[in-house]
Amino acid sequence: MTDLAEPTTLRRLDDAGRAAMFTEARTANTFDSTPVSDAELSSIWELAKWAPTAANTQPLRVLYVRTDEGRARLVKHMNDGNKSKTATAPAVAVLAQDTRFHEHIPALLPFRPEMKDALEENEPMRAGIGTFSSTLQAGYFILAVRAQGLAAGPMAGFDAAALDADFFPDGRLRSILVVNIGHPGEDPWFPRLPRLDHTDVITWA
Amino acid sequence: MTDLAEPTTLRRLDDAGRAAMFTEARTANTFDSTPVSDAELSSIWELAKWAPTAANTQPLRVLYVRTDEGRARLVKHMNDGNKSKTATAPAVAVLAQDTRFHEHIPALLPFRPEMKDALEENEPMRAGIGTFSSTLQAGYFILAVRAQGLAAGPMAGFDAAALDADFFPDGRLRSILVVNIGHPGEDPWFPRLPRLDHTDVITWA
Repeated sequence: MTDLAEPTTLRRLDDAGRAAMFTEARTANTFDSTPVSDAELSSIWELAKWAPTAANTQPLRVLYVRTDEGRARLVKHMNDGNKSKTATAPAVAVLAQDTRFHEHIPALLPFRPEMKDALEENEPMRAGIGTFSSTLQAGYFILAVRAQGLAAGPMAGFDAAALDADFFPDGRLRSILVVNIGHPGEDPWFPRLPRLDHTDVITWA
Repeated sequence: MTDLAEPTTLRRLDDAGRAAMFTEARTANTFDSTPVSDAELSSIWELAKWAPTAANTQPLRVLYVRTDEGRARLVKHMNDGNKSKTATAPAVAVLAQDTRFHEHIPALLPFRPEMKDALEENEPMRAGIGTFSSTLQAGYFILAVRAQGLAAGPMAGFDAAALDADFFPDGRLRSILVVNIGHPGEDPWFPRLPRLDHTDVITWA
């Protein structure tokens, strides 16, 4: 580490933190009955919101489903292989892209408010930024669930059109990922799947 | 926390870890001359690789640029506002999507090897999975840089077509994000930009 003139938060995450966030964290496929409070769910967002997005646009929106009625509605839209996971998760987050995120730009990027109008007129560019940054934020969200001491179970297998018509009927939000959240139940982990070799991923210049 | 029958890594990240990863971490815009070793760069990937992707597809690829020659080539493709940042960063990661990631599926998802052929034939579905999961992995990567005790400077402002033609001439990889990596230099942080109010992001069901 270098000496810095000002206080800094740069610090290597310790081994316990690396294990909890990355090296030993697993996707949970079953959950026990321990409840997850609304305060815990809010705390996940209070972490995830700080990680960076393109032009600070923050296009991700989060619907937290934790009532029996909400969960029953949601399970209908999940693929068959995911229904029982969502049915037993004490809380579920539906992560969605706000297709009109640019309306917030004057507040979020005060030195470039004109970007709002530019994106109003350029739908393909708007969709590109919104899809990219909301997906980045979905990655941050999964790690923030873990940072809160909870198990995450992200699932891409659901009927997005049906889910959106049910939960987001005005058409503004588009779901991108569903994340079960809770404490692991019985046999929660599948055997860990392999990762690509370093040499298949990394090149140098 | 619930009692679990088996050892578990579920644990709430401590305050120092939360600060380093989320609440006090900032995007660095200048870098000092402290080098970043290839071992440090490899360690970033050794963290990021563990976080989940759809069907374990892992479509992200990483080009680490840290030679003077490589950096000079890369700077040409950055937008004007980003050139000086990349020029002074001791290392830069070009994050790219492997458009033929499905070739690895028999090794990565051994119980569903047939998904390789299904995605060979269905290019739109392949592109959708590849774009989504490589972007998730870009989010993991940014947080893994921080976990390594380094500052990350992600940038979407570059000429992707020109960068790809220069560094990935066979057309297989498509760049999605460039991330400066190093130790903060002088005046490294812009004033922190606002985040959306909780009530603008979160809804409940």
